[in-house]
Parts: sequence; structure tokens; C-alpha cells
Amino acid sequence: MTAGRWDEPAHEALRVRAGTRLADLDPGSTPGWDKSRETGEQRLVDQGERLSELQERLFADGRSGGTRSVLLVLQGLDTAGKGGIVRHVIGMVDPQGVALRSFGVPTPEEREHDYLWRIRKALPGPGKIGVFDRSHYEDVLVVRVEELVPRAVWETRYDEINAFEAEVAAAGTTIVKVALVVSQDEQKERLRERLERPEKYWKYNPGDLDVRAKWPAYLEAYQAVLDRTSTDLAPWYLVPADRKWYARLAVTELLREALDGLELGWPAADFDVEAEKRRLDSMP
Amino acid sequence: MTAGRWDEPAHEALRVRAGTRLADLDPGSTPGWDKSRETGEQRLVDQGERLSELQERLFADGRSGGTRSVLLVLQGLDTAGKGGIVRHVIGMVDPQGVALRSFGVPTPEEREHDYLWRIRKALPGPGKIGVFDRSHYEDVLVVRVEELVPRAVWETRYDEINAFEAEVAAAGTTIVKVALVVSQDEQKERLRERLERPEKYWKYNPGDLDVRAKWPAYLEAYQAVLDRTSTDLAPWYLVPADRKWYARLAVTELLREALDGLELGWPAADFDVEAEKRRLDSMP
Repeated sequence: MTAGRWDEPAHEALRVRAGTRLADLDPGSTPGWDKSRETGEQRLVDQGERLSELQERLFADGRSGGTRSVLLVLQGLDTAGKGGIVRHVIGMVDPQGVALRSFGVPTPEEREHDYLWRIRKALPGPGKIGVFDRSHYEDVLVVRVEELVPRAVWETRYDEINAFEAEVAAAGTTIVKVALVVSQDEQKERLRERLERPEKYWKYNPGDLDVRAKWPAYLEAYQAVLDRTSTDLAPWYLVPADRKWYARLAVTELLREALDGLELGWPAADFDVEAEKRRLDSMP
Repeated sequence: MTAGRWDEPAHEALRVRAGTRLADLDPGSTPGWDKSRETGEQRLVDQGERLSELQERLFADGRSGGTRSVLLVLQGLDTAGKGGIVRHVIGMVDPQGVALRSFGVPTPEEREHDYLWRIRKALPGPGKIGVFDRSHYEDVLVVRVEELVPRAVWETRYDEINAFEAEVAAAGTTIVKVALVVSQDEQKERLRERLERPEKYWKYNPGDLDVRAKWPAYLEAYQAVLDRTSTDLAPWYLVPADRKWYARLAVTELLREALDGLELGWPAADFDVEAEKRRLDSMP
């Protein structure tokens, strides 16, 4: 039996619509879920099993000539929990079915190409669940805030990204874009923890505080992303992330709903089952 | 508390030594483990947690300038359980720390290069656990049995592989090579299951029976691999695989022992911890 139910599907509860204001979202809220943390954690396990089964169907479909795939795009400020989503949500499915890619500061080779070059190369193949930990959206987030290219350059990228994603969707990829939203207070707590526990020092980067100091500019850049790139083919979902258990549950639901939407069966045999059984039986 | 103990470390119980005969191995045996399946499954969970922690240390080391990595090479005949190892053993650690690559029939591009070209490209970067589902060993297994290249060509490959692996080890990669050994009877059972359950049809390939018909030739080719490529820098481990729970436990132990052998601590801070705390406190 599945623990708990959402008041409405996560893709409806969390979807960015015209007029959605990032500043109005409470990062401690749990939209669509009014049950306890315990029930939520139980549902995460249940839905993880379901997700795992759906992932296997997708993989089987890809092995059998299908062209479909799913792409989860994860964005969020430092400490919003992107890594935790990968570990605890993506970690629930078979690693063979996952194509994970983290996008950091572009390498010299990447810099020689258009900003979408490295993104295209990392798109999931048929049957895969692709996961982008950061993505081409950095090219209208950090790049915009830090003025790494002129405004005229990043201004055109929103339309370019929409065109790119429409092309990816047309090729068979279901795109799920998630922005994890952490509050300034919660980020302070999480950064402090990294400074207080020696086993977390490696996760800390003094540059994180430089970014934190530009909070309003990042909010504005995120708002522009939501306003200009949440399309029917590649919608954005805003996931409050101060409660890690909720964020993990919400992303699991979003992925599970996306996979359910593909209505995947198991591929038919492309060989004569009875003949193969006889062949096998005749062997030592 | 950790459930059960091995009679001796898995890397000693399973290591291929001079004179090890593949034909003498009982695929239903559980070398080094004389406890029950239930105790073994409990230990798998315990060791998985330990593995996960060690993997994070390795990852942190890689992020902090370390050059070490681990490479698990998985070989075995069809149905030996390579996929199950990936799912159930590698699936226990953070996907961010894993670089998984399956090697199938070479693509046209791969065929234009030396057989080690695609292998080199897939080697794990610093801090990663690389996993090869099949590997360059196919170039002295299927290639030898099916006579895909002349004998003079594959004959030189054993030495080439040893030289290649020595180079990889010298660059900081701990190599763990696992041959999963399934019995002919158990393989028959597993193939039959794929033919009897429609949700498993996609895993079945009529070519599997053509390979099965050449069982003695494959045994001979595997024996040559063990005789000629089990080196101190890159030893082979023979893992009996008729009991899936045992094979998963054994590979988990081998990986855990390899990671323990690196004696990884947590990286020191490369910034002034107290100064950063003050900076953080001074921010809103």
C-alpha cells in the first residue's frame, strides 16, 4: 500500500505559471503535501520503487528501438540540495539507466564552443534518465549576474534555449526542469555546518559567500528564467527546499509522473519465444 | 554492529593465484563466507553504508587535488549477473561518484581505433569509482573464441593489457578485476526465466545461445585471461555467482577493501575557517 497521497499531482502543485513570483514562495512550505514528514518519507520509499520499475521499462524501450528519454534539469543556489537530490532520488534507480552530468565552470575546450555545445553532448540517449546538475541555465544566471558576457548576448539566450529545448523534446525527451528554492536563513545554516564539521570542509568554497552577497540579483535572474523559459514542452517546477525530505519527495513525484506519462509497456519479443525455449532445452 | 565476518578478507579468499583453475571452481560455493544468506544480506547493507562513506572520501579527495580513483572491471558470461552487481552494489553509493561504462560490440567509430582507445576514454577521473561492464577483456575473449582477428593479433594483447593496466595503476587508479562465474545449469535457469516472463524478453538475445554452445571455448579463453593478466597491480578475483546474494556481497567487500586500502582522510580546509565563519556571521 502506498503511504499518503498528494492533494494534486506534483506537476500541477509545483508548476511555474504566468505570474508565478519566486519571491512569494515560502521555501519552508510543502505544496501539495499536507501530511507528516514520516508519511512523506514512507511515500518516498514507495515511489522510489515505482520509479525504479518505470526506469527499467524506459531502459527496455530504449534497448528495443524506442527513442524516448527523460531529462531532469536541476538548478538552485548553493546548498539548495542538488547533490542530495542526485544521491537520494536518482540513487534509487539502477545506475545503468542514468546519465548524470554536472556542469561547472566551462573548461578551456568548452569555452571554445557555443554555450549549448557541452549541453548537447550530454543529452541522454534513448532509454536513459539524464540528470543535469546545473545546466545551460547557468548561462543566463551566473553569466548574467556576474556580467560575464554583454547583456545583448545573454538577452538572446532565453529564446535560443526555448528553441533548443523544443528540439530536444521533439526528438523524444521529456524535460523536467526543477528549481530548488532555499531561504537565506536556511542557506546560512547549511554553510555554517560546512564550516563547523571538518568532514564537510571540502564542500565549502569561499566564493559561495560572494554569490550569497548577490542574493537579490540572483533572485531577479531566476525570475527571468521562470518568466521566459517555462514552456509547455519544458516547464519549470519550483520546489521549496528548506525541508530536504519534501524536496526529495517532490522531485521523485515529478519524475515518476513524467515516466508514468510515457505509458510504457514491456517490449514485445523480436524472436520466436517457443523456438528459443526448444533450442535452450536441447542444449546441455 | 556489523553482521558476520569473513573468514579471511575477500581479496585473499577470491584472488586468482598461479595455478588457479577456473574449471575447479564451484559456482555455487561461497569462499570466505560460511554464514547464512540472511547474515550475508545484512552484512551487504552494513558494508554498503561503509562503502558509501569511503566513496565520499574518495570523491572529496578528488575534489581537493587528489589523483586516486578505483576501477572495477566486471566480466562474466551472459546471465552471470554483471547488471545485478551494478544495480545492487554500485547502486548503494552516490551516483555522483560513479563513472559507469558498458562496452558492447564496438561502434564504427571505435572500430577505427585501437581496441584500447575506447577504454582509455572511459577511465575514471580523480575521485571516481569507475565501473566497466565488460571491458578490453572482450578483445581476448569473444574476439579469440569467434576468431574476429588472427591469433597473432590477440596473442600480443595479454602483454599489451598488462602494460596498459600498469600505466593506469601508476597514474593512481586501484584496479579490481572481477570474473563472475556462473554454472551451465544456473545459466540455463536464468535464460529460461527470460523466455518465460514477458517483462524479461528484452533481456534475451538469441545470440546468447550461440555463445552458450561454445562454453568450453569460453572457459579456455577465460583461463588464459586469468593465467596471463592477473598481476599484482591489477589482480583478478574469481567470484562464484550462482548465488546472487553471495556475488553481490563479495564484490561489495572487494570494493570496500580496495577503498579501505587507500587510507583516505578528509581533505584539510584550504581556506581560513575562522575568518569564513566571521564573514558568514556578518551577512544577513
